[in-house]
Amino acid sequence: MASEPEVIRDKTAMRRWSRSHRSKGKTLAFVPTMGFLHEGHLALVRAAGALADLTVVSVYVNPGQFAPSEDLDAYPADLRGDLHKLADLGVHAVFCPTNLYDYGEGGGRGEVQARRTEGAVGSSGLPVSCLEAAAGDGSGHETWVRVEKLERGLCGMSRPVFFRGVATVVAKLFNIVEPDIAVFGKKDYQQWRIICRMVRDLDFAVKIIGSEIVRESDGLAMSSRNVRLSPEEREKALSIYKSLSKAKYAALHEQSTCQELKSLVVQLVTEAGGIIDYVEIVEQESLIPVEEINRPAVICIAAWFGTVRLIDNMEINP
Amino acid sequence: MASEPEVIRDKTAMRRWSRSHRSKGKTLAFVPTMGFLHEGHLALVRAAGALADLTVVSVYVNPGQFAPSEDLDAYPADLRGDLHKLADLGVHAVFCPTNLYDYGEGGGRGEVQARRTEGAVGSSGLPVSCLEAAAGDGSGHETWVRVEKLERGLCGMSRPVFFRGVATVVAKLFNIVEPDIAVFGKKDYQQWRIICRMVRDLDFAVKIIGSEIVRESDGLAMSSRNVRLSPEEREKALSIYKSLSKAKYAALHEQSTCQELKSLVVQLVTEAGGIIDYVEIVEQESLIPVEEINRPAVICIAAWFGTVRLIDNMEINP
Repeated sequence: MASEPEVIRDKTAMRRWSRSHRSKGKTLAFVPTMGFLHEGHLALVRAAGALADLTVVSVYVNPGQFAPSEDLDAYPADLRGDLHKLADLGVHAVFCPTNLYDYGEGGGRGEVQARRTEGAVGSSGLPVSCLEAAAGDGSGHETWVRVEKLERGLCGMSRPVFFRGVATVVAKLFNIVEPDIAVFGKKDYQQWRIICRMVRDLDFAVKIIGSEIVRESDGLAMSSRNVRLSPEEREKALSIYKSLSKAKYAALHEQSTCQELKSLVVQLVTEAGGIIDYVEIVEQESLIPVEEINRPAVICIAAWFGTVRLIDNMEINP
Repeated sequence: MASEPEVIRDKTAMRRWSRSHRSKGKTLAFVPTMGFLHEGHLALVRAAGALADLTVVSVYVNPGQFAPSEDLDAYPADLRGDLHKLADLGVHAVFCPTNLYDYGEGGGRGEVQARRTEGAVGSSGLPVSCLEAAAGDGSGHETWVRVEKLERGLCGMSRPVFFRGVATVVAKLFNIVEPDIAVFGKKDYQQWRIICRMVRDLDFAVKIIGSEIVRESDGLAMSSRNVRLSPEEREKALSIYKSLSKAKYAALHEQSTCQELKSLVVQLVTEAGGIIDYVEIVEQESLIPVEEINRPAVICIAAWFGTVRLIDNMEINP
């Protein structure tokens, strides 16, 4: 029976915990999450546990990566369940701050505007996240980390504030937790590449590990959003995994062109009732679209089933 | 006689030096510079020396904050002289990397395009710095820290890539040097406020100190660019200090409106032969323009004398 993880809610206390252990020569692996943990997250936590002396998991639904039109309000939460699962895995600390953007007296309270509003565009014409209130005395959060090329394609097309918010909150968490290693899931492929690039470009002293996608027994990639699928939608959503698998096979064994591969996936998912956001085949590091798979590539998809947007991907190494 | 500072050129060696001292309980103060040190820089270094056990100074002309149309090529350098001055002040380490944006094999070499070119706008329509080569395989530096509101006004108007580049290189340097304290000059007022905000918003564990402007005996604010002024231009440039002083006096003793104060400065500097870039009166923290000085404000100016652009400012605390 593992001991309970220490639950830390305060930034300063988190950094103190981390420094006190690091000063004794302990190494620290970190897994940032938005909670509602499933087997996919737990695989990341296990990977982290194998790589360092101590494991820290953060649980924080980051308003900075949601547009006001998106599903921040509907994002599922279960902190008690999460803590049980993490205790079972021997996690040493769980960082679950109330509001990472509250800078105290006269320093912006990090109010969140989570109601669904259309036209999520600020006075500057730039898109805004749930974090940025309409009014402001100039004291609110306004620093954003942009990975300017990688953030643009794929999910960045339909979610213009998403990766700005992800990179920024991860930078904050790295500065608070000060880990040696951080583990990210390759299900969020673009996110993982963006974090790798950010760490390189900003010289963070953190080693990033990409962990393989964990799937349900029928192939559906694990996601916190899966619980919002009806049984029928869930069945239809299997078309994602099936079509990616077929495309990968075709790429490796049938010399199909990228255009043919993409059409195959679009067709199978659409026939199953999904609404395609995008299907792209891109280089694994630069995420630049490829015409032909003659180097390591990845096929990425986002599609809606009912009100739920799912993403998935499959690496193709020719 | 102080001992020579350790000269460190490599990121990893710098972090190792820093961590080895911090692990022994030493505190570290850091002064980032672009070299060609004058008395203004040395005041920052002295302030740093008084605040921590060890002082680290970086000397690096950052291509990421210059537009291709600006004066990167012409920026003066004298590393040998700088090292002598820093040795005299008892600085413990000088970090002078060759290229902070060289990420090694297959990771972007950080080539710098320093030739004067017009139309410094990338394919995305965004402005680009000297760092971003026209062509690219997607492996170059592309992560930028944006302090979205504070970076917009004042110098941000005529130098659209400047603060993006400053915030980014300071984030890199903080991650490499890992100081407890960093000292910035209030001559670069907007820069200082941007760094303060970045540190707050990204939760850097670094305390920022703002150090007062150091002036020549005749009032000219010290700047590495002053050496490029002809004797006549230098004489004319004194109009900056004189006009700011008059405006401050008028603000405190004559109930002048901000419009009157700005007109006064514009008139005096223009009469002396300067070309005004901007004169603004803004709140000290938010840098939001004020109509009336009923709270701490600062009057900021940028003006050209010949080919040299000078900036200066004066706080007004009513």
